[in-house]
Amino acid sequence: MLKGKMVVAQGGGPTAVINQSLVGAVLEARRFHNVEAVYGARHGVRGIVNEEFFDLTREPVESLEAVANTPASALGSTRDKPDEKYCRDIFKSLRAHGINWFMYIGGNDSSDTVRIVAEEAHKSNYALRCVHIPKTIDNDLVENDHTPGFPSAARYVMQAFMGADHDNHSLPGVYLAVVMGRHAGFLTAASAMARHHRDDGPHLIYLPEREFSVDRFLADVKSVYDRLGRCVIAVSEGIHDASGTPIIAQLAKTVEKDAHGNVQLSGSGALGDLLTDTIKDRLGIKRVRGDTYGYAQRSFAGIVSAVDRREAREVAERAVVHGVADDQDGSITIRRVPTGFYAVDYVPVALSVVGGKTKTMPATFIAPSGTDITTEFTDYLRPLMGTDVPVRATLAAPAVPKLLEK
Amino acid sequence: MLKGKMVVAQGGGPTAVINQSLVGAVLEARRFHNVEAVYGARHGVRGIVNEEFFDLTREPVESLEAVANTPASALGSTRDKPDEKYCRDIFKSLRAHGINWFMYIGGNDSSDTVRIVAEEAHKSNYALRCVHIPKTIDNDLVENDHTPGFPSAARYVMQAFMGADHDNHSLPGVYLAVVMGRHAGFLTAASAMARHHRDDGPHLIYLPEREFSVDRFLADVKSVYDRLGRCVIAVSEGIHDASGTPIIAQLAKTVEKDAHGNVQLSGSGALGDLLTDTIKDRLGIKRVRGDTYGYAQRSFAGIVSAVDRREAREVAERAVVHGVADDQDGSITIRRVPTGFYAVDYVPVALSVVGGKTKTMPATFIAPSGTDITTEFTDYLRPLMGTDVPVRATLAAPAVPKLLEK
Repeated sequence: MLKGKMVVAQGGGPTAVINQSLVGAVLEARRFHNVEAVYGARHGVRGIVNEEFFDLTREPVESLEAVANTPASALGSTRDKPDEKYCRDIFKSLRAHGINWFMYIGGNDSSDTVRIVAEEAHKSNYALRCVHIPKTIDNDLVENDHTPGFPSAARYVMQAFMGADHDNHSLPGVYLAVVMGRHAGFLTAASAMARHHRDDGPHLIYLPEREFSVDRFLADVKSVYDRLGRCVIAVSEGIHDASGTPIIAQLAKTVEKDAHGNVQLSGSGALGDLLTDTIKDRLGIKRVRGDTYGYAQRSFAGIVSAVDRREAREVAERAVVHGVADDQDGSITIRRVPTGFYAVDYVPVALSVVGGKTKTMPATFIAPSGTDITTEFTDYLRPLMGTDVPVRATLAAPAVPKLLEK
Repeated sequence: MLKGKMVVAQGGGPTAVINQSLVGAVLEARRFHNVEAVYGARHGVRGIVNEEFFDLTREPVESLEAVANTPASALGSTRDKPDEKYCRDIFKSLRAHGINWFMYIGGNDSSDTVRIVAEEAHKSNYALRCVHIPKTIDNDLVENDHTPGFPSAARYVMQAFMGADHDNHSLPGVYLAVVMGRHAGFLTAASAMARHHRDDGPHLIYLPEREFSVDRFLADVKSVYDRLGRCVIAVSEGIHDASGTPIIAQLAKTVEKDAHGNVQLSGSGALGDLLTDTIKDRLGIKRVRGDTYGYAQRSFAGIVSAVDRREAREVAERAVVHGVADDQDGSITIRRVPTGFYAVDYVPVALSVVGGKTKTMPATFIAPSGTDITTEFTDYLRPLMGTDVPVRATLAAPAVPKLLEK
C-alpha cells in the first residue's frame, strides 16, 4: 500500500463550486491513514513548480467547510498550459516533496497535464497516482453528462435572463446579453430556462454551434420585435460566421473602416455594444440595451445549484477513493443514470480519454431554426438547476373598457 | 367618506421589489369597503392617459403574491416625464373612470407628477387623493433614510463584488466593474460590503460625489497593484471630471481624436472598456478585466433583501391608509428610528417635499481619500442587506518549506 502525501491544485477558470471539490478531496483524504498529509498548491501547476505548498492537514474542518461555500479557487488558479518540460518540472517538485497523489481540479487542458505528469512518473518508476477532477462552467468535457460549475453558472444565466425579461417587459425595447462559452453553447442555451409563459424571453438564442449571419440576425430581431414590440436575445461570446471568424472581429472591421483608425475593442463589453449598435443603426429601433454577463457567471457569491454543490463534492471524494483506495490514475466523469429520476454515477476513465477534447451542444439540443433550443435540452438541464429556483408570475387581471373618446 | 375606485401605477426604472409595493397597495385597499375597485394602469402614467386599465380586484391573492416575488414592474413602466398638459390628461382619465385614489410607485420625477395631478384635482374641486410610494435603486430620494429597491440592488452589487474579488484573487490582475447610479454613489459604495478580511476588494471605489481624474485614478490603481499584485475597482457610471463632464465623454474624445472618426460609445459596456483599456495602455498591466453590471442590478431574479421586501410592501400599505383612511395626499417616506436596533417609521410628507430633488452620499459616508467609504456608511447599510448574506472564507493553512534549489 502506497504511503505518502497528497497534493491538490486548481486550474483554469474558477467556478462557484470548485472549492467544494477542493474540500471534498481534502476531507476524504483524511480518512485514509496512508495519506500522511494533504498539501494545497498555490495557483495550480505553477505553485507546484515553484513549490508553493500549503499544509491543508492543518486547516480545521469548519474553516474548510466555510471555504467550500465560497466561490472561486481558494488555492488560486493559473492559465499556464504546461508543455512536456513544464510537466517534468511538476513531477520533479512532487517527487522532492514525497507526494504520491496528485489531484488536479480543472478542465480538459488540466486533464491533459495530469496525463503527461502520470506518464513521467511511470517512466521514472515513481509511484505517483494522478487523478483529474472535472470542473468547467462551459460544460464541454467529453464523457461527462455535465461538469461541476456548469449548473451554478446556468442558474446565474437563467436568473439574470428571468429578471432581464421582466425588465424588458416593463420598459419595452430590444435587450441583448452576451454569455460566456467560446466553443460550447450550453451556458447560453441555459438562458432558455428563464421562460415560463408564452412569449417570455429570451426570444432568440445564438449559439457558437451554428453559423451567425448579421443579416439573418437583424431579420430575426425585426420579426420578434414587430410581433411583440420587444425582443430579448441571448448571444454566446463565441458566435462566428461561416468561415469561423468571430463576429466581434467582423463587426469590428466595419467600425474600423468607418472610423479610419484604431477602435478600442478589447474588454468584455465590446461584442454586446457592437451588436446593439448594429440593431440601432440598421433597424432604427430606439431602445436597444446590451449587457455582458462577465465574471458574475462563474463567481457570483450566493447563486449555487444544490445539485452542483453536492456533485462537485462527491466527484472529488470519488477521485480520492480512486487514487488512494483503488491505487489508480484516471479522470472521474459524471454519468447520468437512466432511472427515470435524476441520478448520477461517478465513473473513472483513462486520463487520455478526456484531455484536450471539447464537447459541444449535440444537434438534438438545438431547434431547427438555429435560434432556439429543444425541450430535449430543457429536460436535460432542469434537474441540474437545484432547489429554490425562482418562479415568474405575471398579472392576468381583465382590461377595463375605455370611456373617453379619442 | 370618499367612495370610488383606486388606480395604482408604476413609473421609472423597475426594481426587484417594486411589485411588493404594487401588491401591498392592492391588498391593503381591499380592506376598505369604500374602495370599490382597484385598477392597475399599464406602463405608468402613459396607461392612465391611454385608459389602459386592468381590474386588479379580479386578480386572486395567490396570483398577486406570486407577482410580488417577481422582479420588475408587473404593470409595465414608462420613462415619460409628464408636463402640465400631460398631467391634466392624467386627471381627465382618472375622473372619467370615477377614480378617487391615485397611488404612484416611483422616484422623484413620479412624485412630482403626483403633485401636479393633485393640484389639478384641487383646482377642479374633484375629490382625488394622490399618494406617492417611493422606489429607486439609486437611493436618491430626499427625506428617506433609504428607498425600496436599493437594498436589493445593493445586495446584488455586494454579492457580485464578493465573487469577483475571489475570482481576481484566483487569477490576479486588475478587475473593474461599472455600477449604476448617475448622480448618487450609494449603489457603487455598496460594493464595500463585499469586504470581510484585510486586503479584500474592492480596493478602490469611485463615486459621482467626487471629481474623477484619470491620472489620479491610474496612480491609485498602480499603488494597489504594486502592493497586492492585484486590484479590484468599483466605478460609478456617473463619474465626471472637475467641470462635470462625464469621464466616458472625456475618454471618448481621446479615442475619437486617435481614430479621426466616429467611435461607437453607446451601449452599456463602453465606460468599463475605456477604463480597462486606459489601464492596459498606460500602466502596462496585462490582465485587466472589466464588467458592467447592467440590468441585473435592478432586476436579477432571486436576490432580494428580506428587509427590502418587507419595507416595499409596508410603505405601500401605509400609502393606502394615508389616502383612504386618513383621506390625505402625500409622499410616504422611510425614516430610521434611533432605537439601537434597526427599525423604521413610515412618515407621510407633502408631495412637494420629495419631488424633483436628488439626495447624494453625505460627506460623512466618504473616506477622505475619495476612493473609499467610511464605517459610518457600512453601519448605515448593513441592516438593510437582510438575511442569508453570503460569508467569505479563505484558507489559512501554513506554507510548506521549499526543498528544491532554485
